Formats: sequence, structure tokens, C-alpha cells
Amino acid sequence: MSILEENIKRTELSEIGEFGLIDVLTKGIKLQNKSSVRGIGDDCAVLNYENQKVLVTKDLLIESVHFDLTYMPLKHLGYKAAVVNISDIIAMNGSPKQMIIGIGASNRFSVEALEEVYSGIFLACKNYGVDLVGGDTVSSQSGLVISVTCIGEAEESDIVYRDTAKKGDLVFVSGNLGAAYMGLMILEREKQAFKADPNMQPDLAGHDYILERQLKPEARMDILQLLKDTGVKPTAMIDISDGLASEILHICHQSKLGATLYEEKLPIDVTTDLVAKEFSIDPTTCALNGGEDYELLFTISQEDYEKVKDIKEIAAIGHMTEESSGVVLVSRSGTQVDITAQGWDAFLKKDRQ
Amino acid sequence: MSILEENIKRTELSEIGEFGLIDVLTKGIKLQNKSSVRGIGDDCAVLNYENQKVLVTKDLLIESVHFDLTYMPLKHLGYKAAVVNISDIIAMNGSPKQMIIGIGASNRFSVEALEEVYSGIFLACKNYGVDLVGGDTVSSQSGLVISVTCIGEAEESDIVYRDTAKKGDLVFVSGNLGAAYMGLMILEREKQAFKADPNMQPDLAGHDYILERQLKPEARMDILQLLKDTGVKPTAMIDISDGLASEILHICHQSKLGATLYEEKLPIDVTTDLVAKEFSIDPTTCALNGGEDYELLFTISQEDYEKVKDIKEIAAIGHMTEESSGVVLVSRSGTQVDITAQGWDAFLKKDRQ
Repeated sequence: MSILEENIKRTELSEIGEFGLIDVLTKGIKLQNKSSVRGIGDDCAVLNYENQKVLVTKDLLIESVHFDLTYMPLKHLGYKAAVVNISDIIAMNGSPKQMIIGIGASNRFSVEALEEVYSGIFLACKNYGVDLVGGDTVSSQSGLVISVTCIGEAEESDIVYRDTAKKGDLVFVSGNLGAAYMGLMILEREKQAFKADPNMQPDLAGHDYILERQLKPEARMDILQLLKDTGVKPTAMIDISDGLASEILHICHQSKLGATLYEEKLPIDVTTDLVAKEFSIDPTTCALNGGEDYELLFTISQEDYEKVKDIKEIAAIGHMTEESSGVVLVSRSGTQVDITAQGWDAFLKKDRQ
Repeated sequence: MSILEENIKRTELSEIGEFGLIDVLTKGIKLQNKSSVRGIGDDCAVLNYENQKVLVTKDLLIESVHFDLTYMPLKHLGYKAAVVNISDIIAMNGSPKQMIIGIGASNRFSVEALEEVYSGIFLACKNYGVDLVGGDTVSSQSGLVISVTCIGEAEESDIVYRDTAKKGDLVFVSGNLGAAYMGLMILEREKQAFKADPNMQPDLAGHDYILERQLKPEARMDILQLLKDTGVKPTAMIDISDGLASEILHICHQSKLGATLYEEKLPIDVTTDLVAKEFSIDPTTCALNGGEDYELLFTISQEDYEKVKDIKEIAAIGHMTEESSGVVLVSRSGTQVDITAQGWDAFLKKDRQ
């Protein structure tokens, strides 16, 4: 079941050494962006941001904590590692431009395995117009570690922070929520079944959509363009990596406001809904706490509502209130429940994946 | 012997969670640099580099591969992790300005232990005028992982690359070489002795200098200033992280040149020399292949020699030649030996530390 066994050719990392490996992994890179002055091959990358503000984000992804190679193909892993960082640039209303990768790998991984990871990174870079300007590969004694730094640009006046929502603003979310978590549940179920009977073939039929949301998420650069086309700038924005609950709490906490969201407004795909019920999980819980959807959560002023109401890819799910009103969800039955963060927390939910 | 046992108070990471931890570790940070627009607390850091080029570098440090917590105090580890990245900015003739930290830690580490790591990072940031603009802490199932991204600035005309050395240029090195490696050898010896007899007290007396070179290295920002004061700009530059041999090969390879270095010119501290002999290692080997000195290796044109010859902190060790002449060391006895990279290679020398 593991991708590690699929490689026909296996070149040991020790055969080519650290610098040889960097050469193999990064050969043929051509820089596309005007802001990329110098890429891989010196002590630093050199960038030119004379007309734009620089946005920088980084994430550290650790095997057995953030990903499970039993069901995560290496190419998808590279793609996802890149996209989750690109998503942070987009959540500032910026354009991703450069990426630097650091990989820690043990000799369990072959050169070809790391080339697979890089092929996913390259694909994401191509899809989002990003230059890979630095790559570093070091030895790890245990699992695979991927560290990604993404750099992007934005006009100062375009940048959208988390702490600038206003009372009365409408709360919007892009796409739909909870799908990535349901994809994970399916993968975990098949992993357990495979453990119990290694001859079993995984039953993933009919779950393409939610599996793709888990294994190959996309960052919503398209939403930024749709909003730009209407002339609307969000008042606050964040990407949904830890679940809607955690992210709305960030916006409320940092903007010193409350929020009222409506359960009936939460966009949940029909597949997510069906699979959640199959697992006896409330689909609303998936949307609130599932995480890894990489959709955008943003607020806009009420007067901008007319301009954006016909955009199909976004949905209004509530509004910002006074801080003293708290952060609440109005259920379908009309009762109010406090929203608390039960999303992904690295130290509390170690066995999540 | 381990710093992990020294903490009196121990707060479990799970008690405060990921966001609580980030708050504890990064409280009270004040941004100092004009280019730091927004630091920790949003999807990205926001920087302003309208008048300068942006330099970006990153390193991934993994426990048991790059550091050994048996003898590396956590505060020193944080300091060193920051400095080795700052050194990369300096090696481009730039000024370090911002840093983003990613830490992966298992529940073996307490909140107080991570505060120790951060206290070292903060000290390095203070000493080198760097703002910490992003910090991320995730769970790791095994060892400690530290990922550092450092961002700096330089005028385009000031940037010094590796591939721009010219034939006939003089090769200079700052400070002295091999000391960090000898510090490591002392620490390793005491670790082995401690393993054999846990009641033994480590014998580190008289080795302060080389221990500090290993445990608390500094980046040579002072050398850049000394050169600037004379009006001399190096033609090529790199910092010595993997040993002189590996670094001169990088400059030669990338500049498509050869080099002739002179053994008698290599600056080696008297302590390094004594300890090397105690371990029956040729001090020249320490200088060539020891690594982790974080001194600067640079080339300058011959006509600039008069301007820099009185700078005590640097030494001329050879000159650049045609590519066909190879990269050679002229020994004290006058014989020529090829310089080959035997420095730190993550995949070949796993048991180095």
C-alpha cells in the first residue's frame, strides 16, 4: 500500500551525497518571476520587492504527525506541503512568488522517493506561478520532515489582516467545509482494514472528491480574483487550516469582536454529508473542527454585499458582533451554542492522523 | 549532564496547547527594523524592502544529526540555530533583519525547555539586530527539529555571490579555522567518558575557547564592516559551515576557476593546534574539513591587497587560478595536494555528532 515500495529504481542517498542530491532535485529550474533575482546555488536567494510589500510564511510538516505515508503518495505530499504555504500568502490577499524547501530524510528514502516529493512541489509551483529559489536536504534519523517557506507580494493597500474586521461585517467562507476531514476518515478506515488483512484491497470507490480534498488540496487564489473583479476588499481574512471554529476565533480574538454564525448556512458538500453520517459524525462538527480545507474565511462590510452576492463560490455564514456577544453558532433548531476551538492542535491531538 | 534534567519547573506542552505555547514563547516581542511591517500573529509576516534587495536563507537542524542535547544546552542551541542562518545573510554581504522559527518538539520537552531554546534565539536576534517575525511550534514524534528562515537586505551593488571570483584574486579567510571541530571532539570525548562512568564530572577545563566556538558560534558581521571601512568589496564570498575545503570548492566550481592555497598560511588557533595533536589529528585537516567555524571565506582583487593587509582579523591564504590548475593545497614541505571535500555531508557522515 505504501508508495515507498512502488519505486522500481532505488538510488541510495549516500551514493550521491548532499550536494549531489540537491543537484538532482533542483536541476533545470528556471526562474519565472521578476522578483526572483537569484535562486538556488548561493548562501541566500536574492529577491527584488522594490514596488511591493513582502509576505513571508513558513510551515513545518512532520511524518506521523502531519502526514501518514501509508496512504499519502509522496508526490501528493510535496504538492500539499507547497499548497498549504501558498494558502497563507493568499489569506493575506497576496500573490505567492517564491518558495524555499528544506527536507530532512533518513536513508529509508531513496533519491527517487525524494524526486517524487519534489515533483509534487514543482507541480504546485507551476500551478500557482511560484519559483523554487532554495532547496536544502539534510539527514534525519527517523521520519521525513518538510519545512516550507513561501514568499509573496502585495500592494500595502491590498493586504488583508486578521485583526481588522468591523462590527456588523458579514462573514463569508469559500467552497465547502469538512471534506478534507472526511477524506482522512476514509483513508484511516482503509488503513485499519489493511492492517487487519493485508490482502485486502482498499475500498476508496465513490470518494474521489473528499480524498482529493485531503490528499491534494488547493489554495483559493481564484477567490481573490473574483473579489478583485467586483472591487470588494475583505475587511479581514484567514485560511481554514485548523477548522472553521478555530479560524473564526482567531478573527474575533484579534479584531476584539464576537460573531454569530448560522448552522444552516454552512456550505457542506453532499459527499461530506453522506460520509459523515456513515461515520456517525455530525457534518456540522466536520465543518467546524475538521480542518485542512484551505478554504478562505473572510469578512466584508455590509454595503459590499450586493457586489458579491452572485459569486457562487462563496457563502455568507454569519456576521460580526460586539465582543461581549461571544462567538456563537445558531443551530438549525434556533438554539445558540458557543463556538470553541476543537480543531487541530498539534499537542492535544497527536493521533489525529 | 543533560539540560533537560535541569529545569525545576516543568509545564507540559499539552497543558497550554499550540496557540498558548506560541503566546508564551513570543510574548513581548517588539519589532525594531523599519523593514518589519508586521510580525507574529497573522498568516504571514509583512515586510517592506522597497529600497533594498531581499536575501532569504533557511536551514533545518535535526536532533542527533546536527546537534546532541547531551552537551548542547538548549539556550546555546537556539543561539547557534539563529547564528548559522544569520551567517548566510552575512556571506552575501547583507544585513540580517528578520527571522522566522519553526520548532518541532515531542512531549519529552516542557514549555520551559522550549523557552530556553527561544531565549537563545532572542539573544542572537538582539546581538545581530534581527526581528523575530514568525514562530511556529508543532508536534514531533521523536527528536527536536528546528527550522530557521532568515531574511536580510543589501543594496544590489553590494551583494557578493559565490560565482564571481576572478583569476588572480587573493583568497582570504577571517578568524581561525578548525576550532569548532576541536570543541566538538572534546565534548564527544567527555560524553563517552560519562557514558562509561556516569559519576564522572566532565573535564572541560582549559578548553573554553574551542568549546565556545562549537556551542556558541558567532557570525562575522564585524568583518563586513572592516572591509566596508577600507572601501573594498570582495569579488566572491561564502561562509565556512562545512569546512574550508568544501567552501573553496564551491567558489571554484561556481566561478569556473581553480585555487592554490598554502598550508602555512591557514590561520589556526594555538588551542586548536594543541587539542588536535592531543587527538592525533593533523590541525590542517581540522581547518580543511572540520566545519562549523562560520568564518568568512572570500576573494578580493590583487589591487585591493594594500587596503586590507593591515586588518588583523583576516588572512590571505592563497589565490585563484585557472580552472585547469585544479584546487590545491601547497603543504609546508612544498608538495601540492588536491583539495577534496570531506567536510560535513549529511548523508555520508551520519555519526559525526
